[in-house]
Amino acid sequence: MKVRIGIDIGGTNTKFGLISLDGTVLKRLRIATGSFDTFDDYITELISVAKSMVKKDDELVGIGIGAPNGNVHSGMIEFAPNMPWKTKLPVRDKIREAFDCPVELTNDANAAAMGEKIFGGAKEMNDFVVITLGTGVGSGIYINGKLAYGHDGFAGEIGHVITYPGGRLCGCGRRGCIEAYVNAKGILRTLTEEKYNYPESELGKIDEKSVTTKIISEYAEKGDKLALQVFEKTGEYIGLTLANSMVYTSPEAFFLFGGITKAGELLRKPIHHHMEANMLNIYQNKVKVLFSQLPEDDAAILGAAALV
Amino acid sequence: MKVRIGIDIGGTNTKFGLISLDGTVLKRLRIATGSFDTFDDYITELISVAKSMVKKDDELVGIGIGAPNGNVHSGMIEFAPNMPWKTKLPVRDKIREAFDCPVELTNDANAAAMGEKIFGGAKEMNDFVVITLGTGVGSGIYINGKLAYGHDGFAGEIGHVITYPGGRLCGCGRRGCIEAYVNAKGILRTLTEEKYNYPESELGKIDEKSVTTKIISEYAEKGDKLALQVFEKTGEYIGLTLANSMVYTSPEAFFLFGGITKAGELLRKPIHHHMEANMLNIYQNKVKVLFSQLPEDDAAILGAAALV
Repeated sequence: MKVRIGIDIGGTNTKFGLISLDGTVLKRLRIATGSFDTFDDYITELISVAKSMVKKDDELVGIGIGAPNGNVHSGMIEFAPNMPWKTKLPVRDKIREAFDCPVELTNDANAAAMGEKIFGGAKEMNDFVVITLGTGVGSGIYINGKLAYGHDGFAGEIGHVITYPGGRLCGCGRRGCIEAYVNAKGILRTLTEEKYNYPESELGKIDEKSVTTKIISEYAEKGDKLALQVFEKTGEYIGLTLANSMVYTSPEAFFLFGGITKAGELLRKPIHHHMEANMLNIYQNKVKVLFSQLPEDDAAILGAAALV
Repeated sequence: MKVRIGIDIGGTNTKFGLISLDGTVLKRLRIATGSFDTFDDYITELISVAKSMVKKDDELVGIGIGAPNGNVHSGMIEFAPNMPWKTKLPVRDKIREAFDCPVELTNDANAAAMGEKIFGGAKEMNDFVVITLGTGVGSGIYINGKLAYGHDGFAGEIGHVITYPGGRLCGCGRRGCIEAYVNAKGILRTLTEEKYNYPESELGKIDEKSVTTKIISEYAEKGDKLALQVFEKTGEYIGLTLANSMVYTSPEAFFLFGGITKAGELLRKPIHHHMEANMLNIYQNKVKVLFSQLPEDDAAILGAAALV
């Protein structure tokens, strides 16, 4: 049968999926990205694993790769802070040499957007934005039915819009980027800022180092006021970001993608409220705020496979 | 010969241009938008003026209209604050009824971007943004060689990105929009804020009501420190806006459009400096900051004509 391979490269793990044309994941594999001494060793093993997935009577129609700082034009991972090798890594061309089918690479947020378009909730949409919320914050932007790569291939890094000038220090070295407010660390930082306002909170008594967004969700569901306030503030930050993003490309929907979306309405409701409250009048009550409709565990490999 | 008509509708004047296919303006006319009692009277006169421009042996290939809050999908001017009639005005369809050629309408910033693409400095570019600086601040965004209208036809209102949360009150009723800092009034407000820091300035001694951006330019050229500081701050505001805009669509160039661009390098230099200073590292030293290359007096009608 006709199959694609989707590869999701992360700083910790590299995940492989063998995927049928209708989006069924037939086989999954993973290797530890950090366990290789050199990039050459890593890419050799990656190629060998990918080859091992395809059976004799399968027809491999393409390989798609999603990666942090992946550039669609160059096919390289460029200076990704979370990768073990922080130079330009010619991933696409190395894989092309080893296979007889189309091979494409892009960044993980763009791959998520393509996955949403091909296999998820955006099949009928021409203008939408997928926002990825995780260690980093990014986006994949569809306009006129096509993904926006921009002139240099790096369009969509909305985690690094300076939303609060002079605000929190971001991992990129600048101040006020929205990523510093709503990535996993940023949400914990909001908790630290707010805990003194909620001295009764049980959540506030837990050692900060062991708190995760999952734990905050659990306390919020029990009505813990600090936990609810953390979601309120996070919703305020993301809501303002969406209201500002609306102005650029006026999408039909924003799709939220990433582990934190497990919090469901706890997160979506304050986002939607603050988005509308900050929206220019001509855009009010027009755009949907949805969760990604890709199955979470397979979203990244499905997105990568959607590239080809 | 084959001709187009470009119509630039403004709250004060409506300008008409008869334009050859290579972009030469063959004839210009204008009427006062505000001099009509009703929208029906206005549109009747508009159609009559447009008809009078075309000679018997001309072949009219299309009419393009640029207008504030013009919506390409509906063909209407929708709730434009500066128009005498603040409802939905079905301009495109009224004109279509009167002519036998394609008629299209969009907002003035989108028209400026199309003019730049067809007749100006962006002929060879697929990804670029035109920023219009005037009474309002807007943009027209090209991505993948096409103008971004968004799902509702209103993409590009970047004057209303909330860049300084809680900041200056904007005409739209919200706070912190960049328009409140860099439109004509916003620049004068910067002057008012700064004048007490420059007690020696000659510019600071002029009655504020008679100051214009042209006067500020003249003082800046003579070395007046207050005038230079107004350009420095305006450059800071616009520069941050461009750095933030870069993240969405990563254009090859930003084109600055509008009367204030007559200030030339006085304005462009601080914009470029602050844009690079606020730019995420992967975008640094990539994007050009240029002035519109459309002839200023005819830019709006050329842009409108580029629609068809």
